[in-house]
Amino acid sequence: MKDNETRLLEIKERVLAFARERDWEQFHSPKNLSMAIAAESGELLEHFLWMESADSRKIANDPEKIAKIREELADIVIYAIEFANMTDTDLAETIEKKMSHNAAKYPVDKARGRSDKYTEL
Amino acid sequence: MKDNETRLLEIKERVLAFARERDWEQFHSPKNLSMAIAAESGELLEHFLWMESADSRKIANDPEKIAKIREELADIVIYAIEFANMTDTDLAETIEKKMSHNAAKYPVDKARGRSDKYTEL
Amino acid sequence: MKDNETRLLEIKERVLAFARERDWEQFHSPKNLSMAIAAESGELLEHFLWMESADSRKIANDPEKIAKIREELADIVIYAIEFANMTDTDLAETIEKKMSHNAAKYPVDKARGRSDKYTEL
Amino acid sequence: MKDNETRLLEIKERVLAFARERDWEQFHSPKNLSMAIAAESGELLEHFLWMESADSRKIANDPEKIAKIREELADIVIYAIEFANMTDTDLAETIEKKMSHNAAKYPVDKARGRSDKYTEL
Repeated sequence: MKDNETRLLEIKERVLAFARERDWEQFHSPKNLSMAIAAESGELLEHFLWMESADSRKIANDPEKIAKIREELADIVIYAIEFANMTDTDLAETIEKKMSHNAAKYPVDKARGRSDKYTEL
Repeated sequence: MKDNETRLLEIKERVLAFARERDWEQFHSPKNLSMAIAAESGELLEHFLWMESADSRKIANDPEKIAKIREELADIVIYAIEFANMTDTDLAETIEKKMSHNAAKYPVDKARGRSDKYTEL
Repeated sequence: MKDNETRLLEIKERVLAFARERDWEQFHSPKNLSMAIAAESGELLEHFLWMESADSRKIANDPEKIAKIREELADIVIYAIEFANMTDTDLAETIEKKMSHNAAKYPVDKARGRSDKYTEL
Repeated sequence: MKDNETRLLEIKERVLAFARERDWEQFHSPKNLSMAIAAESGELLEHFLWMESADSRKIANDPEKIAKIREELADIVIYAIEFANMTDTDLAETIEKKMSHNAAKYPVDKARGRSDKYTEL
């Protein structure tokens, strides 16, 4: 699979099939999946704890580290997709809606180059 | 956008364009994005803190709650996708690789119906 | 050390001495420590991902598991205490203030037996 | 309460009394508390997302921000203490044990000035 050819639905179906084959849907309540997403996010964090922000931009140059980091990222997204499966969520639609929402909260002219929260723009 | 028609690359490009228009790539180091993913995961968790696991399965029946929960999920995935953008990660490829890896760690016959870690199967 | 004899200041001083001996204060910015706290919280979560809430109440009966879980808890508190060190925070005072605040938001008569957020009481 | 006069047991007892008065122990399973700790850690993270590590060291100079940050820290520690309550954990003892453990993994002569994981020292 590659990003330029893979529709979200294909990944959702693969992730769902993986869980079903193992009879794991019984464990995949939204509550439990929210914990799994957070636990995997914690593992991603760990790679960057003591690293300077600027240095983290060069992480893709270290093949061994980036491979591990990509695995953590995949874990997060796999659980997020399974969360979408278990809550009848169309992820693309939800993302599109959230991005319009964000665009309204952060209009380009006000938000450009600023990291402030929208309430402080 | 809908899951059955949207390729991951399209979402990556939209997310990247959103950040570029606002000159936000300067804030989007992998370190900072790993924090953003974890912070949004924490917000998703909050919806389920005191809820029974079984009750969380019915969350999609509450239109107001599920709308908020889907927003949190979208935030997580948007930041995960921006993380992929900033680390030259092909997400579909990474997910496929991770799932083969998981399939080897959790063979169907051993893992069926069990939530144990692969080291304890 | 035991809870009935140990003042918070003693732990703060030990934790600070540990970092100073290793010249680690250079890494212990509040930003980095907030990440460390979250990463350790993720490790604590992992122990409970697929466990029923009711079953988690019996965890102290499993000597091996509870020992690991207590280590994760210690990690969280150690980093939280170092965060207090690095931000000149009197933790006991802060906790007392937060608890009065919480008592006002969750008056006993309204909050008894309910897990709702204060905004919904 | 102040750090130089407050024993951990006092805080544990206050936190427990707070929950008991509200009949909240029914919600405070270790599983649920692990989620609450992680959710509060996420809120602490949020304050530092886009901030440079060096700038975060000056956060105590901003009275409004540091007050909010201390509240988040208090939330984390309060839930960690309640977790100790609900799992019969002597927190001071656990912290002491974990620090000896850490001292063995990170001997001063090897670890000084280095942020590497003990497996890489």
